[in-house]
Amino acid sequence: MSNKLIDSFIKVRSAASLLSATSDNERKLALKGMADAIMSAKAEIFAENAKDLEAAKANGTPDAVLHRLAFSEDKLSSVTKGIQELCQLQDPIGRTREKRELDPGFILEKRTFPIGVIGMIFEARPDALVQIASLALRSGNGIILKGGREAANTNRKLVEVIQKATSGFSFGKDWILGIESHEDVDALLKAEGYVDLLIPRGSNAFVRYVMDNTRIPVIGHADGLCTTYVDEYADLEKILPACVDAKIQYPAACNATETFLVHEKIAETFLPMLDRALSDRNVMIHAEKAILPLMPHAVEATEQDFHTEYLALECAVRTVASVQEAVEHIQSHGSHHTDAIMTQNKNNADYFVSKVDSADVFVNCSTRFADGFRFGLGAEVGIATSKLHARGPVGLDGLMTTKWILTGNGETVAEYSGANGKPFHHKELQI
Amino acid sequence: MSNKLIDSFIKVRSAASLLSATSDNERKLALKGMADAIMSAKAEIFAENAKDLEAAKANGTPDAVLHRLAFSEDKLSSVTKGIQELCQLQDPIGRTREKRELDPGFILEKRTFPIGVIGMIFEARPDALVQIASLALRSGNGIILKGGREAANTNRKLVEVIQKATSGFSFGKDWILGIESHEDVDALLKAEGYVDLLIPRGSNAFVRYVMDNTRIPVIGHADGLCTTYVDEYADLEKILPACVDAKIQYPAACNATETFLVHEKIAETFLPMLDRALSDRNVMIHAEKAILPLMPHAVEATEQDFHTEYLALECAVRTVASVQEAVEHIQSHGSHHTDAIMTQNKNNADYFVSKVDSADVFVNCSTRFADGFRFGLGAEVGIATSKLHARGPVGLDGLMTTKWILTGNGETVAEYSGANGKPFHHKELQI
Repeated sequence: MSNKLIDSFIKVRSAASLLSATSDNERKLALKGMADAIMSAKAEIFAENAKDLEAAKANGTPDAVLHRLAFSEDKLSSVTKGIQELCQLQDPIGRTREKRELDPGFILEKRTFPIGVIGMIFEARPDALVQIASLALRSGNGIILKGGREAANTNRKLVEVIQKATSGFSFGKDWILGIESHEDVDALLKAEGYVDLLIPRGSNAFVRYVMDNTRIPVIGHADGLCTTYVDEYADLEKILPACVDAKIQYPAACNATETFLVHEKIAETFLPMLDRALSDRNVMIHAEKAILPLMPHAVEATEQDFHTEYLALECAVRTVASVQEAVEHIQSHGSHHTDAIMTQNKNNADYFVSKVDSADVFVNCSTRFADGFRFGLGAEVGIATSKLHARGPVGLDGLMTTKWILTGNGETVAEYSGANGKPFHHKELQI
Repeated sequence: MSNKLIDSFIKVRSAASLLSATSDNERKLALKGMADAIMSAKAEIFAENAKDLEAAKANGTPDAVLHRLAFSEDKLSSVTKGIQELCQLQDPIGRTREKRELDPGFILEKRTFPIGVIGMIFEARPDALVQIASLALRSGNGIILKGGREAANTNRKLVEVIQKATSGFSFGKDWILGIESHEDVDALLKAEGYVDLLIPRGSNAFVRYVMDNTRIPVIGHADGLCTTYVDEYADLEKILPACVDAKIQYPAACNATETFLVHEKIAETFLPMLDRALSDRNVMIHAEKAILPLMPHAVEATEQDFHTEYLALECAVRTVASVQEAVEHIQSHGSHHTDAIMTQNKNNADYFVSKVDSADVFVNCSTRFADGFRFGLGAEVGIATSKLHARGPVGLDGLMTTKWILTGNGETVAEYSGANGKPFHHKELQI
């Protein structure tokens, strides 16, 4: 690893340490300064973005990627609105999560603190850079950013604008660092001791590559094979729009539904409704053979279809005989991301919620709601599909660690030990 | 991996799934049954333990290891008492951590659920086996246990007794599995998809080996180079016993203090006090050269002494000019485990708590309090020194993951999107 890069990482850590000790107010002011600076520099940012878009078009980049790459007025207003919302959330630093008296005057607290320095590798989406940077600043963490190379000019300008906007604050500008090359990413993966957490976003293969090539803890944002199960007790008219929304509202998203399971008792009523609603919106339907007569617009599904994350206007449909069978299907085919049940039956909803082992388990709404903004987390750095630390949309909370703080008056373990030792009274205190 | 072992792991997962859906009451009854069965079988257990002890002695095993290996009446009563305490803690399953209304009648909850199947590799301590098994049962997790080989006979008997005690419950006996050989451990490390979390305890080298040889998430319980800093504003008479306790109460523990930092302004008063108190208890003191005249029982310290986890009646001592210097020393020499400040000055205590980046940061008490039982967590599976998921003593909470549960009435993302979309009102609800 180049010494220059190590020096940069060390600078991020020093600035992060200062940032972690700032007041709520200073971080809010810095965020407002950041939003203002981005608004003021929008002509320059758009000019850099135009360069990136032109180069991407010349390279034959697909439309979906171009759409994400474009940093428009719309996205600008959305990210600055996001920053305002972040400022309205409670300060995530120093919050007491547990408080317990071990003995009179001997108080244990579990309090939140920033993790330290976070390395984030993400797709070519300049609006995501602003979101991630603002989450890092609000949560008191240093951030090292590597965005998709198609956005290199836009990202460079954004980091420059953000650094300038915060340079007058007590923690300075070095809490945020942009890196660009493949070599820099390899150095980031090797930066154990300098970086506390890596958050890679992208394909499963890429997330796996990161996990296999670093000793730094990783929160993986991997694929989403999401399923919506329509139970025999569903209110079909009410939930049909949510089923359609789950598929079509943004099919390229990881929280879009790929598979519909329908209880066989309602198949004759619901499958024609679903067939019509989805085919009207140009969704290609892969249905199991037995239900093809009920879904005239469908083609016959293969077993592989039920293991496929289409990320497109395409879905797989089959029937199940019970909520138990639906859960089994999801456990063996899904990706533990987001799954929904449509039902008016509380027992079935409870069973589904308890048994489906996914980050997000929804009842009677679209799987597309799995999102940090919609959840009220103040944006997200990703949606975690692993079970440790953070699960589902990762907002401010996922960027915090905790410390146990024990405050006493000279207590010794010896006096609480052995047959005649004092007992602990372990009294929970109001937080 | 042998098919037989995979089959066993699958059985653990099936039983864990049943266990995760049991009532608080059933798990409490099972724990009581487990405690009773261990008491009833104590003659058999002690007989197996005697075999292990005899073999270990014949192999020239060190006294400290023999001491941990012995499963005495004392330890038996301590683990059964631990089980009773676990039963008194609130059910960890299904607890609501966050609750928010996204819009009227559209409710988001973050609720706790068991992680699934946990693989635990630990030292030759039969009492630890019972503690870990009872934490797993209380938290609704399946557990695969590999204890130190010196305890093989005792462990085999304990697992047998525990399995028999729970076989009559709805989840059966297969939630707990004991494995023994090196090959079994290698299979465990490769069991991605069957095992959700590994918790290795042991040397740093061993924990590192596990992390480097598995794709399963790991909570590492690594070394503890703990420091106690005595500030210029300490109440010296009051805190001297806590300093001594931190060193001598159980020197082989990871939370024993290895280094004392003393503010130079109180060095002339406090160092002779510390010298006397520690040398009276047979502690070998390594002091920096400049303070040797104040610590007549000390030998001169090398720089290496301040990087050493003695795990014995030995410590290193130096002075610092400020609380800032103390924090810098701890950040560069410590292991982010447990560090303490002794002071009556609230600003210095706050600074220390905010800046020392360790799992446990204590004020005016012994570092030896870093422990799940003492913290009121109902025992611990280990003390995590990493910053993600669980930090410090890992009790029931560390064995839980969460799910986001969103319950609505057919809501679509489309209706909340775009210029005319409904806003979310994100109203926090009482938990």
